[in-house]
Amino acid sequence: MATVHRIRYSDADPQGIAFNGNYTRYWDDALTDWLWDAGFTGEHLGVGAEMVTAHIEIDFRSSARLGDVIVTEPSVERIGNTSMTVALRTTRQSDGELIAEGREVIVFVDPETFRPVPVPEEIRTRLG
Amino acid sequence: MATVHRIRYSDADPQGIAFNGNYTRYWDDALTDWLWDAGFTGEHLGVGAEMVTAHIEIDFRSSARLGDVIVTEPSVERIGNTSMTVALRTTRQSDGELIAEGREVIVFVDPETFRPVPVPEEIRTRLG
Amino acid sequence: MATVHRIRYSDADPQGIAFNGNYTRYWDDALTDWLWDAGFTGEHLGVGAEMVTAHIEIDFRSSARLGDVIVTEPSVERIGNTSMTVALRTTRQSDGELIAEGREVIVFVDPETFRPVPVPEEIRTRLG
Amino acid sequence: MATVHRIRYSDADPQGIAFNGNYTRYWDDALTDWLWDAGFTGEHLGVGAEMVTAHIEIDFRSSARLGDVIVTEPSVERIGNTSMTVALRTTRQSDGELIAEGREVIVFVDPETFRPVPVPEEIRTRLG
Repeated sequence: MATVHRIRYSDADPQGIAFNGNYTRYWDDALTDWLWDAGFTGEHLGVGAEMVTAHIEIDFRSSARLGDVIVTEPSVERIGNTSMTVALRTTRQSDGELIAEGREVIVFVDPETFRPVPVPEEIRTRLG
Repeated sequence: MATVHRIRYSDADPQGIAFNGNYTRYWDDALTDWLWDAGFTGEHLGVGAEMVTAHIEIDFRSSARLGDVIVTEPSVERIGNTSMTVALRTTRQSDGELIAEGREVIVFVDPETFRPVPVPEEIRTRLG
Repeated sequence: MATVHRIRYSDADPQGIAFNGNYTRYWDDALTDWLWDAGFTGEHLGVGAEMVTAHIEIDFRSSARLGDVIVTEPSVERIGNTSMTVALRTTRQSDGELIAEGREVIVFVDPETFRPVPVPEEIRTRLG
Repeated sequence: MATVHRIRYSDADPQGIAFNGNYTRYWDDALTDWLWDAGFTGEHLGVGAEMVTAHIEIDFRSSARLGDVIVTEPSVERIGNTSMTVALRTTRQSDGELIAEGREVIVFVDPETFRPVPVPEEIRTRLG
């Protein structure tokens, strides 16, 4: 499962490249597609928990220019007690060049109290 | 009541001006500030109705460049049975030059059914 | 030529629907794809002119929810001396329901002076 | 120097809080204000170099809700040969609660070749 974005005027900054601040959006879109694709949809993802992003880190290796199509792929790096670390890589589709890489830490929380809860078993099974 | 935005790299496109597609965000921000400022906050704006944007029209008269501070001012143009037309004007703060003007039509709806409801009396009184 | 957007968390507002202020971005993306697809790419679109958005109007007919895939299609409505009016329609892919429709007026300008210039002949021929 | 953002509908996601992917935009806005305020404006910041974001890391400590005003403050953490590390903290204005903290690594590059160049002396003097 990979998510594709095409860099258009709405994405590009005065340097003519995808604005650095857009990548967290591209990554959240990719995480969403990845979860939906694994069947985690609807209220509380169907597992009785909400997900909260606790940490994001991005290393920019290159940049994407107007017209470039970029591909973002999430993969599980680690599943802990109440959190999951997901690695993310964004590459240029045409030549495979690495544009950005890093990770996000996602914490599972109770939908009412927003307190951490154990990672749902279905998440471990289907993504882990 | 007026809402201010400063044009930074996150706003500017490769032409070095505020991306045209951002103005609907600036205007929605201004409408939100304007409503909040008039006391319409919290669940269902405190009047038992939700607002839905039905129509937007924008005429661009000039453009805002990096570093410009722009000011958006909403004002009621007309209040109908179930809708309100709000005029919007965005000017450059430094010299008052008109950047964009137009209007939005907002429909009041039932929070459950999303069907149109009469414009709440408080809206007529406090904004009209 | 049509441009597709999937509504994810980055697109949705607290009502759970695509934020109204995003549609101008979706439409600009669609206009860009449409122009690129017709061969108008690179510096000054390869025709010695820049395009400036002069007018946008949107009528919202329905709304797009989380997970919806929406399709935007531009088509020429009118080509004048120095401007072009493009009609835009956004529909839900799954059932074809109309979400938003309207138009944008685009003015062709000199890249140096930003003064209006005649619509380039290639635009008339390939899009008109 | 601090940069203020008010969380409105355009910022909030279906959970009713500022979308996590917006913080890189808030931080870039804050970095821009901070540089402009220190006199680094105009072409190549007036120092013959462009800045490129090489690394971003964010720890989310709390969340900002609709109507919250958040304040972001950058401060130099370290200046190296060709890069500068800037710490960033975002707090809620009303009660000072920490919402997000982290850092960005900015590399100075030649405007033509985009190759790293030494951190301009004015940057060391005025920000360091």
